[in-house]
Amino acid sequence: MKTLSTSLSHGGVQGVYSHASETCNCEMTFAVFVPPQAKDGKLPVLWYLSGLTCTHQNVMDKGEYRKLAAELGVIVVCPDTSPRGEDVADEPDNWQFGKGAGFYVDATQEPYAKHYKMYSYITEELPALIAKEFPADMDRQGIFGHSMGGHGALTIALKHPERFKSVSAFAPIFEPSTAGWSRPALEKYLGADEASWRPYDTVALIREGKSFPEILIDQGTADSFLDEGLRPWLLEEAVKGTQTKLTLNMREGYDHSYYFISTFMDDHLRWHAARLG
Amino acid sequence: MKTLSTSLSHGGVQGVYSHASETCNCEMTFAVFVPPQAKDGKLPVLWYLSGLTCTHQNVMDKGEYRKLAAELGVIVVCPDTSPRGEDVADEPDNWQFGKGAGFYVDATQEPYAKHYKMYSYITEELPALIAKEFPADMDRQGIFGHSMGGHGALTIALKHPERFKSVSAFAPIFEPSTAGWSRPALEKYLGADEASWRPYDTVALIREGKSFPEILIDQGTADSFLDEGLRPWLLEEAVKGTQTKLTLNMREGYDHSYYFISTFMDDHLRWHAARLG
Repeated sequence: MKTLSTSLSHGGVQGVYSHASETCNCEMTFAVFVPPQAKDGKLPVLWYLSGLTCTHQNVMDKGEYRKLAAELGVIVVCPDTSPRGEDVADEPDNWQFGKGAGFYVDATQEPYAKHYKMYSYITEELPALIAKEFPADMDRQGIFGHSMGGHGALTIALKHPERFKSVSAFAPIFEPSTAGWSRPALEKYLGADEASWRPYDTVALIREGKSFPEILIDQGTADSFLDEGLRPWLLEEAVKGTQTKLTLNMREGYDHSYYFISTFMDDHLRWHAARLG
Repeated sequence: MKTLSTSLSHGGVQGVYSHASETCNCEMTFAVFVPPQAKDGKLPVLWYLSGLTCTHQNVMDKGEYRKLAAELGVIVVCPDTSPRGEDVADEPDNWQFGKGAGFYVDATQEPYAKHYKMYSYITEELPALIAKEFPADMDRQGIFGHSMGGHGALTIALKHPERFKSVSAFAPIFEPSTAGWSRPALEKYLGADEASWRPYDTVALIREGKSFPEILIDQGTADSFLDEGLRPWLLEEAVKGTQTKLTLNMREGYDHSYYFISTFMDDHLRWHAARLG
């Protein structure tokens, strides 16, 4: 692991690191904030998965998470959203596919299968590195994210309920198989057989019996992607009569940007901290 | 005035605007955050002047000021740091001069005098526009800034003590005439006669008898520009025995970045709010 930068911030250390990822077959960059309480022992870990077009840096710059994370004593890990590098297959003019748009799946189709393994990267390789290199209590993990990253956080938590004590999302994508901005990506990464898409679909996972005790979602009503790409009512419908309790806050007038995320970041940090102990 | 964007954030509105500036002879962009209390009447105004290489956007993205400004009910105005546009004289490879480096002076030397009038822009033209277009109580103004913008805030407050009720700075430049990164800029903007530089020098202004009741400064000890470019001890020395009371906080381990600024942003917002009433 290489340290690209570290800065003292709100009493903790905001660092940016990179490593040669075997899973993604390229150099991967990620950000970690370690609160000041780390001097006294291991701390719980909160994973933040970013949305389309983002790197680790967007939330690091605009997420406004450090002040409260430093108070609560929670490590915040912010991975990239896709493999990177000149030899990584991409559609440079398409912001909904390729670099910056890994959708947290393991691609099976060429030429994408060589690098686009974000599901395994986020659930296996990067956690092992975090556990090794940071003062992280891996028995206390939570996960959240925004938009495509909210989709990633929810699908990952539903498939690893034993690992994560908490999950939440800002304006997550639901049913990516029926949303215009994600359907073509799933087809290119996973192939035409839609059965192979289902493990990456929160609503499908819940319909198939997966559950998580509690889910927190915040969604802005002025989000221009709400009706076509996000549709939290699909989850609201799916969890009815299940073991999964959904708290869905519709936030009047808020859009899809980090202005929205940062406004409700503290609520989400407190949600996770309360469940991470 | 053109509205370039608005987003709801922490209950207020973060907007970005532009206008044809007569002073700078070009289109100028600026950011304004209006807290939710504006629905009940005019609010105090806090000016944030940014540092070298910045636009209005850096602090808007990374300053973490909206949450507390929304609680305190303070409008935050974030201007650009220089004139902009293709016909504005510049040294594109020099980050310490030209675009992004206006130093809050009124240039007298050609070819810079045509556009580089940031002192008049910040003290005359933009305040008039803010008073006209926003719910701003111009009898309650404070000013602060970072680095070059800290220098700007302090020099402007010292020359307008009747206008500003409060001033503070993050890692401001002192004695720009003797600092390597500012001396060449002053010479190019103002000419070789150093007497013409003095109105833009906090230490010189205080030595000449200007005063401000209280100044708050935060400075990181790990700031790589501290010894050569910032040197707050010059102000500490200059205010001795004067009417100006300086609170200088040296912050162990903090650097020159927005990680430092955002950490102490709340302290500065509270400092200003307490004095703006």
